[in-house]
Amino acid sequence: MTEDTFITPQRADALISNALPADWPTEYVPITSAAGRILRRPVPADRDLPPFDRVMMDGIALASAALGNGNRRFKIESTALPGRPPLALSEPASACIQVMTGAVLPQGCDTVVPFEEIKISGDYADINPNLRIAPGDNVHHRASDLNKGDILLPAGKRLTPNHIALAASTGQTEVCVARPPRIAVVSNGDELVDLGHPVHPFQIRPINNYGIRSVLHARAFPEVHVFHTPDDRDAILTVLNTVLDNFDLLIISGGVSMGRFDYVPSVLQELGVQKIFHKVRERPGKPLWFGMFRNNKPVFALPGNPVSSMVCLHRYVLPHTEHAMGLRQTSEETAVLARPVDFEPRLTFFPPVRTSVVEGVLTAEPVKYNNSGHFAALSESNGFVELQADINHFPAGTSVPFRRWTSVL
Amino acid sequence: MTEDTFITPQRADALISNALPADWPTEYVPITSAAGRILRRPVPADRDLPPFDRVMMDGIALASAALGNGNRRFKIESTALPGRPPLALSEPASACIQVMTGAVLPQGCDTVVPFEEIKISGDYADINPNLRIAPGDNVHHRASDLNKGDILLPAGKRLTPNHIALAASTGQTEVCVARPPRIAVVSNGDELVDLGHPVHPFQIRPINNYGIRSVLHARAFPEVHVFHTPDDRDAILTVLNTVLDNFDLLIISGGVSMGRFDYVPSVLQELGVQKIFHKVRERPGKPLWFGMFRNNKPVFALPGNPVSSMVCLHRYVLPHTEHAMGLRQTSEETAVLARPVDFEPRLTFFPPVRTSVVEGVLTAEPVKYNNSGHFAALSESNGFVELQADINHFPAGTSVPFRRWTSVL
Repeated sequence: MTEDTFITPQRADALISNALPADWPTEYVPITSAAGRILRRPVPADRDLPPFDRVMMDGIALASAALGNGNRRFKIESTALPGRPPLALSEPASACIQVMTGAVLPQGCDTVVPFEEIKISGDYADINPNLRIAPGDNVHHRASDLNKGDILLPAGKRLTPNHIALAASTGQTEVCVARPPRIAVVSNGDELVDLGHPVHPFQIRPINNYGIRSVLHARAFPEVHVFHTPDDRDAILTVLNTVLDNFDLLIISGGVSMGRFDYVPSVLQELGVQKIFHKVRERPGKPLWFGMFRNNKPVFALPGNPVSSMVCLHRYVLPHTEHAMGLRQTSEETAVLARPVDFEPRLTFFPPVRTSVVEGVLTAEPVKYNNSGHFAALSESNGFVELQADINHFPAGTSVPFRRWTSVL
Repeated sequence: MTEDTFITPQRADALISNALPADWPTEYVPITSAAGRILRRPVPADRDLPPFDRVMMDGIALASAALGNGNRRFKIESTALPGRPPLALSEPASACIQVMTGAVLPQGCDTVVPFEEIKISGDYADINPNLRIAPGDNVHHRASDLNKGDILLPAGKRLTPNHIALAASTGQTEVCVARPPRIAVVSNGDELVDLGHPVHPFQIRPINNYGIRSVLHARAFPEVHVFHTPDDRDAILTVLNTVLDNFDLLIISGGVSMGRFDYVPSVLQELGVQKIFHKVRERPGKPLWFGMFRNNKPVFALPGNPVSSMVCLHRYVLPHTEHAMGLRQTSEETAVLARPVDFEPRLTFFPPVRTSVVEGVLTAEPVKYNNSGHFAALSESNGFVELQADINHFPAGTSVPFRRWTSVL
């Protein structure tokens, strides 16, 4: 099998998209733990916003018609406080009501004059004679932001802290979000020695497990369990058999290349996972394997090299899974190459880049990138661009799709 | 006191920056819970990266000098696996060693030919006669990414999942990060009724508490406690007295305006909090109050309107606190106004905007924004720009500082 017979990234997208379950389950969660989750039912305003004519400044409220004859002195009848039922002005022609920010505008009043513009002497307020006053000044009118029943938060958003504040405004304690899959992250390889244990010169650390788990936590997948298997077919079979039963989604790293000890594809097929594709015309990430177990459990087997694994996670696993969960915001941006990139192989190329905004332009500077095992490139970059196959030379200034690595903000 | 005598945002920056403690404490945390935290000690590579000449492809390793006479058939002596001590080639002129990705390049070999380019018959490998082979092909040379002792992660970064993966590569289980302050978030106001309780038409929901807490959690401040007080001086005094003793940083919302019941500034001063400033020439956010308790506990009292409170949190509280904690990445970007903005008052203006990248340019579109109580603007925007005072007209195309609302990714 030559590279030309592998599928393209676009074909991989279509195959994954078709295979993933269309009706991802939902759940209600307290809004205090909903940040990062994908909203599945819209949140409507439970009442007009604001719910009443709201006083916006501390001062006095009055009827602007009373200013018609040049009157600038008003008797203070009472004080309207936030959180109290509305007051009413008894003598609109000559009196006013002291008001505090957040109070209901008293009945009979249509404007608010702030304290900075008045002088209070005993029961009387004298207004700065030079102040121009219009009806509605410093009043936040009922329903001027939104009407009751209007959609405050549409379904399909990833909830930010601001969304949480908005959801709180409705008084509801819970929101309906996609239920995140329980995810098993499985690495394999005899060369991997966990942190805190001595390492031989010929061994390395299981950094994919730590990186992938951290990404998933940052994207509000709370239930992520990490497993490791040696390069032993029976051990891989035992572990994968267990996790297929107990988790909703599998992310495997390593064991999918051409090597004699890359048992993952054959073990997955033996366990009844239906292979959808293996190998994509791309670099890094060529050995990517994808299949489905019992029509509802996606299995993504990523190459073991750290950059490959992170690229495949961000290019395929996360966008497709989150779309299936109901997310309707794309994570793809467009950036402009800061310098030319040459790439000979007839493969889609995903080089790590660091973006910055240069005179307003989102500019992507390719970072030093030796190969897919060069994981320091993960730290120096903030994402990667997608350079299409069949073009060998990308001049500086080319606009290209850009995806960010998962950050925490 | 007129607006002209309030301080500018730049002066507020300087005063906060001078007042905050310079030596914020640190702590060691497991790398599995370090994402989002601010790194305080650099993480050096514990050994060369890669630590050995690493095989990058499954295939055969050989001595490239043996190809000089056109020889393309090599006897397979043995198999080098990842995680095993290095092998050595006995017959460099005529033999090769089968190698798997991640193995140590066997001694005596200097190049790797991938399986796709060879045919194996019994103990012999025949290499594609058209393949050009050079020393170093498919070998990731020891120390080609980094040398032992080189800095993998410099101090001052906010740790992303990729940083966690890099830290894991050193085998260390913990990293040294800034110890986050225990934060008390205190709202006040008789008009606020918590979620899940019936609300009168003249009452509203305490959305600042929910929004601020969610922002702080997203920014890796794990210990955030929320308090609420009515508009009662004694109650405010009791609550603030307790939280000043038990927390490292206070964020108060509401009660700092000119109203008769805005007790917060006087209560704070009665409790011994040294006022540094009150009121800034800006909109929203004018009533901002800032002080220090016992020289090490910052107290930020924000205006109660939701947009004011979020702007002050993102413009002052977070950048200054995180800088004091050791963060050395700015959260300020530059965006270009999509349309002209007119603003008469001689105040710095922070209008909420939604940015998008238009032909590569980070473009800021001001959203509908009625006033600082119009919290739906928080959801429609993804941040706010800073428009300097003393300019009334900002044409489309003006480059301006932009800060993003806290998101979860």
